[in-house]
Amino acid sequence: MRIARFSIDGTVGFGVVEGEPTDEGGLRLDIIKGHPFAEFERSGHLVPLSEVRLLPPVLPSKVVAIGRNYAEHAREMGNEVPDVPVTFFKPSTSVIGTGDEIRYPSISSDVHHEAELAVVIGRLCRDVPRERVREVILGYTCANDLTARDVQQREKQWARAKGFDTACPLGPWIETQLDPADLAIMCTVNGEQRQLGRTSEMVRSVEDLIVHITESMTLLPQDVILTGTPAGVGPVRDGDEVAVSIEGIGTLTNKVVRRG
Amino acid sequence: MRIARFSIDGTVGFGVVEGEPTDEGGLRLDIIKGHPFAEFERSGHLVPLSEVRLLPPVLPSKVVAIGRNYAEHAREMGNEVPDVPVTFFKPSTSVIGTGDEIRYPSISSDVHHEAELAVVIGRLCRDVPRERVREVILGYTCANDLTARDVQQREKQWARAKGFDTACPLGPWIETQLDPADLAIMCTVNGEQRQLGRTSEMVRSVEDLIVHITESMTLLPQDVILTGTPAGVGPVRDGDEVAVSIEGIGTLTNKVVRRG
Repeated sequence: MRIARFSIDGTVGFGVVEGEPTDEGGLRLDIIKGHPFAEFERSGHLVPLSEVRLLPPVLPSKVVAIGRNYAEHAREMGNEVPDVPVTFFKPSTSVIGTGDEIRYPSISSDVHHEAELAVVIGRLCRDVPRERVREVILGYTCANDLTARDVQQREKQWARAKGFDTACPLGPWIETQLDPADLAIMCTVNGEQRQLGRTSEMVRSVEDLIVHITESMTLLPQDVILTGTPAGVGPVRDGDEVAVSIEGIGTLTNKVVRRG
Repeated sequence: MRIARFSIDGTVGFGVVEGEPTDEGGLRLDIIKGHPFAEFERSGHLVPLSEVRLLPPVLPSKVVAIGRNYAEHAREMGNEVPDVPVTFFKPSTSVIGTGDEIRYPSISSDVHHEAELAVVIGRLCRDVPRERVREVILGYTCANDLTARDVQQREKQWARAKGFDTACPLGPWIETQLDPADLAIMCTVNGEQRQLGRTSEMVRSVEDLIVHITESMTLLPQDVILTGTPAGVGPVRDGDEVAVSIEGIGTLTNKVVRRG
């Protein structure tokens, strides 16, 4: 099931995405009564997806991100795969949805795309045992862990390099039935392929990461885990259209604009 | 004015703290109608502070913290004062109030206290010019930037070392009339002085930090800035009572317990 968050005529809601892009009339949203993180039912009221604005599918209290989780990407950056996952936060103010603009930050002149599989947490959890990880996951979406590479190289901690406004596009929706073990993940810039990997190349699996993170901190419903990026990261520029696609989920597309 | 957030009989509210600890009957709370981040008035309904449970004075969407902002502390850790402030996040799930227990995390055996002046943001802001910084500040409170020193030394990014549950005590309340330029700041453990400094020793002032942070990210009402710790950091242990006191604000007290 694909769950989207949307606005239409100033109202915000959730809906289940129905159909395929190739259907006559395209994708439709079956509007939900209730909240996807609690009890809900479909209203049967269908709206063409083209008539709504898709929003970030969740409003996370925190985004916990993992660095260097694909060996080939670690190597391209001149790094080793670390003994312990590199763990950092992206703030809620960095989250945008598909179709929203990435505002190029004034503190950088070298912003890079990083396509990532994002895990959406469905329930409050702490000290999650490996065999129960699947129970705390609502689903998966696409993420772009935008990184001001120059700032990252100058500053010891990555809060500014990876936490600027619009640095965390998420979307287009949450896919709730998906095995994350071996999915193709791709990033294109203006239609040209830049990153192509498979989630099976992750050094640590989704299970490993959730066990590791919840060893010391509570995750809340709507929190998001970013699982690292495959090789091929590179710069984006004013006017570029960046798209992250993950097999079984869909495509997250954002245009880059320089902040006026 | 001192604004506290509290609970009594399962209800949560804000109040203005009246009187002095030495008054007969002690401090009292004048319960607020409305919200301190918007319009509010005092109800005139006074409750003894001893009858309520103080909560963290704010529920921040993010805590933006600054490292190495006191030269003597940077030196005691064997570090230089950085050219650019070291900037990192502590998540909302790490925030506790005065009187709440610090749960010693299982991932560490060397948790240190770090007494800090905390700035509470009063309004949404971005690209704040230096001369308007005061307008975006609601007030100041005490913070303890608890740090798993062993984890910090092992892991390149500090999310786990400084982001574990209960790693960010804030309180006891927000003081709205205060010049932060030169205040005594102290940390005691079981009544014994461990840190003593003055905010005038900060490498970067509150103004500098808010200009720097809002250059790339939006701050929301209730967001908190931690401004760095003076020299004298050291370990806390199971059973310890840690107190952070700042001149003109008050004292934030928390007991350390090993998580069962």
